Amino acid sequence: MTAHPRLSLNQATVKYADLLTALQITRDAGIPAIGLWREPVAEVGLRTATTMLADSGLRFSSLCRAGFFTSSDPGLLSAALDENRRAIEETATLAAAGAPGSAPVLVLVAGGLPEGDRDLPGARARAGDAVGALVDDAAAAGVVLAIEPMHPIYAADRGVVSTVAQALDLAEPFPAATVGVLLDTFHIWWDPQLDEQIERAGRAGRIAGYQVCDWITPLPDPLLGRGMMGDGHIDFPAITRAVLDAGYAGDIEVEIFNQEIWDADPAVTARRTVRAFDASVAPTVPAQQPGQMLTRSNGR
Amino acid sequence: MTAHPRLSLNQATVKYADLLTALQITRDAGIPAIGLWREPVAEVGLRTATTMLADSGLRFSSLCRAGFFTSSDPGLLSAALDENRRAIEETATLAAAGAPGSAPVLVLVAGGLPEGDRDLPGARARAGDAVGALVDDAAAAGVVLAIEPMHPIYAADRGVVSTVAQALDLAEPFPAATVGVLLDTFHIWWDPQLDEQIERAGRAGRIAGYQVCDWITPLPDPLLGRGMMGDGHIDFPAITRAVLDAGYAGDIEVEIFNQEIWDADPAVTARRTVRAFDASVAPTVPAQQPGQMLTRSNGR
Repeated sequence: MTAHPRLSLNQATVKYADLLTALQITRDAGIPAIGLWREPVAEVGLRTATTMLADSGLRFSSLCRAGFFTSSDPGLLSAALDENRRAIEETATLAAAGAPGSAPVLVLVAGGLPEGDRDLPGARARAGDAVGALVDDAAAAGVVLAIEPMHPIYAADRGVVSTVAQALDLAEPFPAATVGVLLDTFHIWWDPQLDEQIERAGRAGRIAGYQVCDWITPLPDPLLGRGMMGDGHIDFPAITRAVLDAGYAGDIEVEIFNQEIWDADPAVTARRTVRAFDASVAPTVPAQQPGQMLTRSNGR
Repeated sequence: MTAHPRLSLNQATVKYADLLTALQITRDAGIPAIGLWREPVAEVGLRTATTMLADSGLRFSSLCRAGFFTSSDPGLLSAALDENRRAIEETATLAAAGAPGSAPVLVLVAGGLPEGDRDLPGARARAGDAVGALVDDAAAAGVVLAIEPMHPIYAADRGVVSTVAQALDLAEPFPAATVGVLLDTFHIWWDPQLDEQIERAGRAGRIAGYQVCDWITPLPDPLLGRGMMGDGHIDFPAITRAVLDAGYAGDIEVEIFNQEIWDADPAVTARRTVRAFDASVAPTVPAQQPGQMLTRSNGR
């Protein structure tokens, strides 16, 4: 089986597979890249994970995830920032072990409102401050912090950064080489300003990653209701074209939270992912590897 | 029992009560106004409903709901527009029967994507066209069409208008006396642009209604997961202050879709609504009836 040369399987799509299994089924499905999660990496230890990744021959497209830095408690916030610094180091190490074209991208999910706190602008401001506190560490490690705007359904309890515009506002004070945004169709597809904000992100050189999965209805579950591309309402050609036109030249990750998909054989899911990507996304994407492409100049 | 003089009970909060019961429990709870729904009005017939409303002595604050005009099928669209025209007439009739200070406001929910259609911008454009097709009828009847932006969770299957900014963009081509927006905290609380868009709506004289209910977590159900004010994450003082500062001088409706609340005794729910409003919303709202207030001049 071969897959599109820019497809990456985000490990969350096969959540119950351990790291070695995830790497194997990805390679066996002909998928050239993988996005990893911190928990399965920690399960085997970073050193072993790095070896496994290098042996797989796969590109590394991102590490999920850090962030969760909206606490108003100084002790908790400090602990969260330390955790983020560890994640930055892991990202650098894994990206160096991946095949050429690997991307040292760390996905940041802001976190929700602190318990009993209703000050959403306050939590958002703290998220911006936290990114600022991590910029030097990320720059030193050569890692890109990718702020992920989350669907507004998660604004209270998971991610207070709700739109691409807002993520870009938070990123803007910092160098584009170090702070970007992560575009995930599930989170952003509904946004009336989507086209203009994707264009803005591209102009600023801040599209640090692009993830796809579908919005299905009726939504089976607020967290686990994401669907395989083609099973829902998202116009993948339109959004993908906008992201590519904005200059994004990296891997495209498929990241799906869905209980039914998690319960399936991960090898079957990997092959299903290849087919769904081919049908819904690939027709819009030139069949060149990230490493073979010229990226548009930033700040044009 | 007495309630805040600007509180209105939206009938959806006591969904299983028939019209007469809804009117009675609203009055018994000391609530001075009610927002009605078309279905329970149709159950008794418009003429009887009008008499019941007049006899109740309550103000009428809005009729829910019309809209659902995103179909790309000309026949279906035409039928939807006819239905909207009937709703406009009902709104005018009911508002005339309500106590002084009643508001001839018809709430419009755009509707979702047509079956199998992934063109969200197209559906949004049709919603704008449909509003345009209804403006003359509404103006002739003295009715205000209130476009309700819906939480992005509903963009696929219920309401393609997702933000206050977008609702205002759709309203802007038409006279502010006839086309406004309906602000519902559940739908808009997460919006990073909320303050500026509420201010924009106020400046344009387009805040046609204000509804409150809370966002609770974990979200028990995408549709029926709305909570009583105070039970969730929404900062009612902040949003209510913004809406009032923007010049809104009408009734404030409590509209809650929640199975547990629906299953309760409606009289109990009405009294609970009064207490929750007193605790979470009323402290921000001057205790004057809509009719006694001076509205800010529009277009300032």
